Amino acid sequence: MKFVTEIGYSSPKKTIVRGHDIQDLVKNNTFTEGIFLTWQGRLPNEKERKMLDAILVSCMEHGPNAPTILSSRIVASAGNSLNASVAAGVLSVGEHHGGAIEQCAKLFQEQINQTGKQIVKEFEEKKKRIPGYGHKIYTTDPRTVQLLEIAQKLGFFGKFVKLSLEIEKELETLKGKKLCLNVDGCIAALMSELGFSWQYGKGFFIISRTTGIIAHAVEETVKEKPFRRLDESEVEYIGKK
Amino acid sequence: MKFVTEIGYSSPKKTIVRGHDIQDLVKNNTFTEGIFLTWQGRLPNEKERKMLDAILVSCMEHGPNAPTILSSRIVASAGNSLNASVAAGVLSVGEHHGGAIEQCAKLFQEQINQTGKQIVKEFEEKKKRIPGYGHKIYTTDPRTVQLLEIAQKLGFFGKFVKLSLEIEKELETLKGKKLCLNVDGCIAALMSELGFSWQYGKGFFIISRTTGIIAHAVEETVKEKPFRRLDESEVEYIGKK
Amino acid sequence: MKFVTEIGYSSPKKTIVRGHDIQDLVKNNTFTEGIFLTWQGRLPNEKERKMLDAILVSCMEHGPNAPTILSSRIVASAGNSLNASVAAGVLSVGEHHGGAIEQCAKLFQEQINQTGKQIVKEFEEKKKRIPGYGHKIYTTDPRTVQLLEIAQKLGFFGKFVKLSLEIEKELETLKGKKLCLNVDGCIAALMSELGFSWQYGKGFFIISRTTGIIAHAVEETVKEKPFRRLDESEVEYIGKK
Amino acid sequence: MKFVTEIGYSSPKKTIVRGHDIQDLVKNNTFTEGIFLTWQGRLPNEKERKMLDAILVSCMEHGPNAPTILSSRIVASAGNSLNASVAAGVLSVGEHHGGAIEQCAKLFQEQINQTGKQIVKEFEEKKKRIPGYGHKIYTTDPRTVQLLEIAQKLGFFGKFVKLSLEIEKELETLKGKKLCLNVDGCIAALMSELGFSWQYGKGFFIISRTTGIIAHAVEETVKEKPFRRLDESEVEYIGKK
Repeated sequence: MKFVTEIGYSSPKKTIVRGHDIQDLVKNNTFTEGIFLTWQGRLPNEKERKMLDAILVSCMEHGPNAPTILSSRIVASAGNSLNASVAAGVLSVGEHHGGAIEQCAKLFQEQINQTGKQIVKEFEEKKKRIPGYGHKIYTTDPRTVQLLEIAQKLGFFGKFVKLSLEIEKELETLKGKKLCLNVDGCIAALMSELGFSWQYGKGFFIISRTTGIIAHAVEETVKEKPFRRLDESEVEYIGKK
Repeated sequence: MKFVTEIGYSSPKKTIVRGHDIQDLVKNNTFTEGIFLTWQGRLPNEKERKMLDAILVSCMEHGPNAPTILSSRIVASAGNSLNASVAAGVLSVGEHHGGAIEQCAKLFQEQINQTGKQIVKEFEEKKKRIPGYGHKIYTTDPRTVQLLEIAQKLGFFGKFVKLSLEIEKELETLKGKKLCLNVDGCIAALMSELGFSWQYGKGFFIISRTTGIIAHAVEETVKEKPFRRLDESEVEYIGKK
Repeated sequence: MKFVTEIGYSSPKKTIVRGHDIQDLVKNNTFTEGIFLTWQGRLPNEKERKMLDAILVSCMEHGPNAPTILSSRIVASAGNSLNASVAAGVLSVGEHHGGAIEQCAKLFQEQINQTGKQIVKEFEEKKKRIPGYGHKIYTTDPRTVQLLEIAQKLGFFGKFVKLSLEIEKELETLKGKKLCLNVDGCIAALMSELGFSWQYGKGFFIISRTTGIIAHAVEETVKEKPFRRLDESEVEYIGKK
Repeated sequence: MKFVTEIGYSSPKKTIVRGHDIQDLVKNNTFTEGIFLTWQGRLPNEKERKMLDAILVSCMEHGPNAPTILSSRIVASAGNSLNASVAAGVLSVGEHHGGAIEQCAKLFQEQINQTGKQIVKEFEEKKKRIPGYGHKIYTTDPRTVQLLEIAQKLGFFGKFVKLSLEIEKELETLKGKKLCLNVDGCIAALMSELGFSWQYGKGFFIISRTTGIIAHAVEETVKEKPFRRLDESEVEYIGKK
């Protein structure tokens, strides 16, 4: 097997990441700058760093209810190592949980030369939902509001954010009710402003949420007895008797 | 099932992490500060934040050779989603790859009241290797040297670092050759100085290396054809004919 | 959370799988019969059992070259438990490695009322490859030949197998060279004959290959030293210097 | 990288498993015989095959309550492929869920030359629990009773089974109440009778339970809406306000 890479390499003498000696990065850079560099090939300026920090903080922990935390705690409860528990948590990031970031960023980046009207019409004709819009509870997603405020202040209210809001407006016109740009769609627009390719979409959610996954897996291991089971009342068998 | 947690919770009204509203954290804090808070229950001061950033940057990417990257690229090459590929990478963090941080931090934290001499003697009697010491290539691990320099400047040259160096000295006296405090052992000492419990040991390596894992999984998916196989010359069958 | 299921349940008094007491199954049935029952809701007759056994044996082990075994051995080599190593192996079953069974079975089951000609034409117009056809090395896949021989003897040469061969013939007419029904496509046709829904497609490969994954993970753990790395000659860095 | 193996290899001409051409195995052998061969290096006789079938059927499916099924259904519910969902299920096989088979088989195989009395005494002195004994609900595990009945009929009531029952008796004498040989301990004794090395312990549970894991992951994907979350009433936050 042969691996060809633009990302980095390591030899006994030194480790290089995107052209930078890792020793220099350790001395001079934050973890967020390191993520930006590794994924995009250049270090961010101060505004880009702040925007990425806001995105990464926004998804890092939302309590044990979500699939990412649940699956991780269940695997930890069966007596597994931290890495196995974290892997189970990361596996829960799927099409329906964080996956909209990827699909929505793909849409924004591939169709940036179209208008919001054209995009909404195209999805309407295919009878498909546009990823990154709508929320079970919110008519306005407060996390979107906040991230966009920060984006405006830092100067990231560019063509991708504008397209994302145009689509939101067109959807409202078409449907007669608001289908808000949710936090997944907002991150999709902002990562595009920052220059990341859409294939990294789930990556922001994964590395951010790994924070909470690790904390919950450790808590389960240290504080709880083995192992998690559903109560009998939580299962209903409707098969052959 | 019932989950009791001290880490965080989310309701339609707000999301709380360790007593902080996540909206405030998004506005005011970096990702590294968010990790520190989620794992330890309080925000770091500036020096603690810098020390944690140095640790997290030091492991984030070391080229495709290591198990974490290899397994992730292989799973990506078979046509899997980013989360499945990252999970495979995280699974490669095992007892022999990053696991020494956990075991070494456990040792430092549980035996902080003993001298380096006592600890070395105890392991010698049990004929066991002390985790976090020795390196295939280095007699002095340059990453340790650098992290300790930063630790000294920031004021984290406390009892755990001192114990870690005492053990290194005692090992040299006993063995007649240097068995250096390696980067795993050094991180174990520094995370202890920062107040993290040893169960988080693998966590620093996992979240840091997820940076490189994601970059390599994306590169494999975008740039390479399916799928990775060993060449015939890389396999030798020595079983029954 | 509430789980509603037709598959099975367990109480302190007894465990029921698809209407059967597991104690009866243990006494009277083989593992292959158990798999058939759990996935399809009824026990197989002797011919169905034999056909399923042939499918399951055909994929169980093909040496260390393939992604399933490679990723598992790499994770094992880093010092992980058997379940973590097996999980990494299972993760390697992706769209390009075993995934064609699912896609091809979906095609056969959803378009069983069309002719091979119509299906080939449809894919040709969409400029898409039909999953389950073609092989890097073989012009005739010997595994397909063998499974079809067994199918004929046992009486499973029904409408799905006929459609699969019709497509093969049409492809040859269209392309002017043979694009053989490969082992994935053949299993897709046979599982359809046996009455399994296409969503189980990857399942046959997963449970079958788990045999080899477990053997290789144990071998790696018992016989090899930690841990697997690429040699320097296997990596080429083409990024920024 | 170079992989040396006794298990099998594949070339364009043929695939060999433990010295057998896989084409012959497909024609002549059951899946259970294939598992026996791959893990142990020889084909089983009819009695050994029946004993292994009984073991594999006994663990294949126990309803959605257990960690293996729960974690798999949660990952499936987030919109993941079958292989990712199965991997999460396999990850749930841990020290506290199936892991006792491995530890108990290790004990039986390494201490087969000791008496039950010596072993019980040794664990008592170390204040450790013997893996494979005791059950939350049962004073006699009905699955053990049944597997031992089959073992007796087939002629596998050998030295490992005898040691396992001797330990059960000694434990009762010592504790004054029965701590039954549970199904994990029973499988540990029987796999030892069949000649499998203890490192395969978790393997029997993993491959067997993969049956139920696959069925539940498919059911979740086909029948349920995305995605599984805990209800608010299932979470209690006891951290900082």
